[in-house]
Amino acid sequence: MSRLTAEQQQEIAAQQGAAHETRRATVPALEAILYKALPVLDHGFVRVVDYMGDDAAIVQAARVSYGRGTRKVSEDQGLINYLMRHRHTTPFEMCEIKYHVKLPIFVARQWIRHRTANVNEYSARYSILDKEFYIPDPEHLAVQATTNRQGRGALLDGEAAQRVLDLLRRDAESAYAGYSELLNEDRSGAPIDPERPGLARELARINLPLNFYTQWYWKTDLHNLMHFLSLRADPHAQYEIRAYAEVMLGTLARWVPMAHAAFLEYRMNAASISATGLTVIRRLIQGEPVDQPSSGLSPREWRELMALLRPSHP
Amino acid sequence: MSRLTAEQQQEIAAQQGAAHETRRATVPALEAILYKALPVLDHGFVRVVDYMGDDAAIVQAARVSYGRGTRKVSEDQGLINYLMRHRHTTPFEMCEIKYHVKLPIFVARQWIRHRTANVNEYSARYSILDKEFYIPDPEHLAVQATTNRQGRGALLDGEAAQRVLDLLRRDAESAYAGYSELLNEDRSGAPIDPERPGLARELARINLPLNFYTQWYWKTDLHNLMHFLSLRADPHAQYEIRAYAEVMLGTLARWVPMAHAAFLEYRMNAASISATGLTVIRRLIQGEPVDQPSSGLSPREWRELMALLRPSHP
Amino acid sequence: MSRLTAEQQQEIAAQQGAAHETRRATVPALEAILYKALPVLDHGFVRVVDYMGDDAAIVQAARVSYGRGTRKVSEDQGLINYLMRHRHTTPFEMCEIKYHVKLPIFVARQWIRHRTANVNEYSARYSILDKEFYIPDPEHLAVQATTNRQGRGALLDGEAAQRVLDLLRRDAESAYAGYSELLNEDRSGAPIDPERPGLARELARINLPLNFYTQWYWKTDLHNLMHFLSLRADPHAQYEIRAYAEVMLGTLARWVPMAHAAFLEYRMNAASISATGLTVIRRLIQGEPVDQPSSGLSPREWRELMALLRPSHP
Amino acid sequence: MSRLTAEQQQEIAAQQGAAHETRRATVPALEAILYKALPVLDHGFVRVVDYMGDDAAIVQAARVSYGRGTRKVSEDQGLINYLMRHRHTTPFEMCEIKYHVKLPIFVARQWIRHRTANVNEYSARYSILDKEFYIPDPEHLAVQATTNRQGRGALLDGEAAQRVLDLLRRDAESAYAGYSELLNEDRSGAPIDPERPGLARELARINLPLNFYTQWYWKTDLHNLMHFLSLRADPHAQYEIRAYAEVMLGTLARWVPMAHAAFLEYRMNAASISATGLTVIRRLIQGEPVDQPSSGLSPREWRELMALLRPSHP
Repeated sequence: MSRLTAEQQQEIAAQQGAAHETRRATVPALEAILYKALPVLDHGFVRVVDYMGDDAAIVQAARVSYGRGTRKVSEDQGLINYLMRHRHTTPFEMCEIKYHVKLPIFVARQWIRHRTANVNEYSARYSILDKEFYIPDPEHLAVQATTNRQGRGALLDGEAAQRVLDLLRRDAESAYAGYSELLNEDRSGAPIDPERPGLARELARINLPLNFYTQWYWKTDLHNLMHFLSLRADPHAQYEIRAYAEVMLGTLARWVPMAHAAFLEYRMNAASISATGLTVIRRLIQGEPVDQPSSGLSPREWRELMALLRPSHP
Repeated sequence: MSRLTAEQQQEIAAQQGAAHETRRATVPALEAILYKALPVLDHGFVRVVDYMGDDAAIVQAARVSYGRGTRKVSEDQGLINYLMRHRHTTPFEMCEIKYHVKLPIFVARQWIRHRTANVNEYSARYSILDKEFYIPDPEHLAVQATTNRQGRGALLDGEAAQRVLDLLRRDAESAYAGYSELLNEDRSGAPIDPERPGLARELARINLPLNFYTQWYWKTDLHNLMHFLSLRADPHAQYEIRAYAEVMLGTLARWVPMAHAAFLEYRMNAASISATGLTVIRRLIQGEPVDQPSSGLSPREWRELMALLRPSHP
Repeated sequence: MSRLTAEQQQEIAAQQGAAHETRRATVPALEAILYKALPVLDHGFVRVVDYMGDDAAIVQAARVSYGRGTRKVSEDQGLINYLMRHRHTTPFEMCEIKYHVKLPIFVARQWIRHRTANVNEYSARYSILDKEFYIPDPEHLAVQATTNRQGRGALLDGEAAQRVLDLLRRDAESAYAGYSELLNEDRSGAPIDPERPGLARELARINLPLNFYTQWYWKTDLHNLMHFLSLRADPHAQYEIRAYAEVMLGTLARWVPMAHAAFLEYRMNAASISATGLTVIRRLIQGEPVDQPSSGLSPREWRELMALLRPSHP
Repeated sequence: MSRLTAEQQQEIAAQQGAAHETRRATVPALEAILYKALPVLDHGFVRVVDYMGDDAAIVQAARVSYGRGTRKVSEDQGLINYLMRHRHTTPFEMCEIKYHVKLPIFVARQWIRHRTANVNEYSARYSILDKEFYIPDPEHLAVQATTNRQGRGALLDGEAAQRVLDLLRRDAESAYAGYSELLNEDRSGAPIDPERPGLARELARINLPLNFYTQWYWKTDLHNLMHFLSLRADPHAQYEIRAYAEVMLGTLARWVPMAHAAFLEYRMNAASISATGLTVIRRLIQGEPVDQPSSGLSPREWRELMALLRPSHP
């Protein structure tokens, strides 16, 4: 089954075929995938549908604020690194991107918590939802973590996994059948059983579970996009939203390669070390022996710091 | 079944019993219901759990901005009316309120679209959801509206309504049974069937439908609260979120009675008349005959304006 | 003296000469003035330097939310009107625009109160401000209004006006001379008087008055732009910021002509009528005599309503 | 000259004398300074005028989100530390504080860039500004930094400092004299010279320099307050705004001592180490020799990292 409706496929073909002339900053590497549905999970996708600005727009905004200075392109990366390191966030806000995303409702519920964005979501008050629901890959079915109250632990074995998948599929099918019966209308709006009334769409949809797919347009600036990605591409994020964040990271690399490099170096792969943690590091570099009780760190903080400082750290 | 857990009831009793001395502005009429769970729908509630400021705080902020002037309490209502009429919104932002709300997930999904608020929601990644789901009263079961693509039309008759209720209840029960089986843990976290593994909470919950209840703390300023209420206490809003908005309107009346009165007069019960609509009104007052074709209004706008100007308008 | 530095003129010429191919939505009428400095006041300007989306993007977002429906371009204006009338604001947030603005500091202070925007301002901590200050045209020199505590009243006559202009110019010249003396550096950063130290830029600038010009990049979405314009193109706004808003209204007409038309009809030239005001209108249409005491309106509200309903209303 | 008008002193005395009973969370250590003007710079102040919530409110919000768990007060600090370390920011948004601040306009211009706050500023369109302007202490008069384009370098010696102070004072006096002449009205609004017209206030004020004082009410939540303080109590911030941030840090310690401690440990006195910086630290701990060229860091980043790791680091 396609991730896209026939209507959407036509619309995308039309958009991709268009070619306009503009004096705006344009990014060929992003134009190459513009409008294209990048698959995520079993039925979802991410599409970049518009953008404003590029790496040069960040540099230009910084130069307005911080004065003239260098003009060579070779120095742009250095300036962008400087901005990222010193939390000068406003130049990154000068770039904007718009995505069309198809995602399960429980992912949408996490995503929408990021408030600094513009959203237009498909409304099941007006329209009928398709029968598309998320069923995890067996490789993502895990028991509740015991060390971490919010994560996943060991994977389920084959039989247990199959049982979960069967149950999820059975309940989703059954819920959609209930939804259809409540609505009592086909996609054209005609009654299925003309002998009885249908229920208003805004009520019928309350029967659908959180793994059904919804869609939205989501538009944000580059600073807030990076903030979103730093939280949602993080290993602490639930796997399903992380899958979206990782595809979006790829679009970031195409769109603003310099900002993307700085983001990895100074945010995603950087670490915040507490005041006490810094003291521990200073002592370790001096060759002093330090253990958890003498470190001033809690056992959990100590464990996390030691993992971070291990020579084999990924 | 109570809307509140035993734990919540104890907590509320403790909060209500407390009495502190403060030099902050205090509103006795709101203190009288502080922490109290005001029932909404079949299992939901709204509780005011904290507030900052009162009508006088609005007036004080306005006087900082707009200069000295009147000092008489008797003139405060006039000043608040003036601010409301002239869209001077910042003085209203000086008051803040915090609610604890228990609400169905589909209502939470509409509510969260209001971005200018602070939210802490119960997380089903960490905790297990109770078996509490929303089943509408028969008096709210309606067919899809035909004139308005987003609303409800005629009520279902008794038999059709019963059929809907049975289906909703059956599917919710079945989904919760599936959820419990996936989790395979009781409220204390112990496995129900020790022979097989449970599924991580963050995955098991995707089986639950949108009519299950969630809870959150929701905090906003008075200006944004009134904006929320103007949209969600409106007849165009879905009945279920309107039920919450109406209870919150009651808390507004207790908290800031002058702002509440101004809000009803200049926002909730006011109307925005378009440029062309104003021309029509001027002609009608002059006694000119006007009909839709000569009005410049679309048929729909004409109907809405005529309804608004009807002497018997509610 | 030019509004633009030689450097800015070169940059604009380079930007305007560029032509890129894009698959994004493009608006030829806006491209025609892209990067061009549109003059405002004596030394200021507004330049559109980037944009995202067009009228079709609003329609497309609305169709995502509100479902399929019409597809004819001829019906797009109707849909945009519907969105504007019913306060469905999120589709308008799907369009974004970026301006480069040169403006007096006291105007910047009013402007920045609109928080839902991205800003990068020229920083006088890093750079030296040019000797450019705002001197009003004599036709805008007015006495304090007596009826309205925030506005202007009668114009000054020629002699009084000349006296004001002389004083403003004299004080601005003198403040800039003080600033230069404090800095003791020329535009290249070399000391003017090598015998004495200069003061840090971040301190020297505190000597400059509020009529000096600053510059910024300002980026916002269409919904928030219209909100800004509805407040700042309004007759209650101070003349100087209104001058900017009016030039920006012109760019709105080029960019999104359908949204611009709807904005004029349903916002700028519309009126909000209070609950009591609506009752008065209903009585007037019935031919009942109504006067202020019997209207339930305050004298000021009555005056304003009568002005609005006058047949000769502009 | 007092920092407060006689009117303000009376108002404060009345507020401080009041004692109300409330069931809301109350913080005695903050009540002790409520309404009190804490002096900043030569004429400025910060006053806490209202607040909502306390450390327990943060904990309570976290427990809603993250589930039941510990209940002992002794564990609250641990939970707050956990939230701060893991960037769980929403529980901190559950507390709100309101300040009344008197500050020079150039400080207000930096401050207002923090958009997530509510502001009501004294308006010089409506009211007449007092003759109060900021003159730095000689100990804060410094030359432009050469190593850092935005900061201050060596202090001015006595004679040069005196010259600066004289010039700043002279120009401020002269600008205020010009302002008064333009206004031609005394504090009661009566004309000074009845023979000639005054200029509208909104225009006359443009003659005043950026070191004049303004006032505002500023209200924000705890998360955004800490973000503000982390940027503005930082040594890179201009001294004058830092002076305000430091006084506000003191109010934070009174209001939410646990959050304050966590803020110092994990934000103010913590450091973000880049991916490459972490590699350097790992090598140093292993006893490997590392120098700047072999580190992968830029010279500037290397210098900053070495300063941070120095055993004598403050």
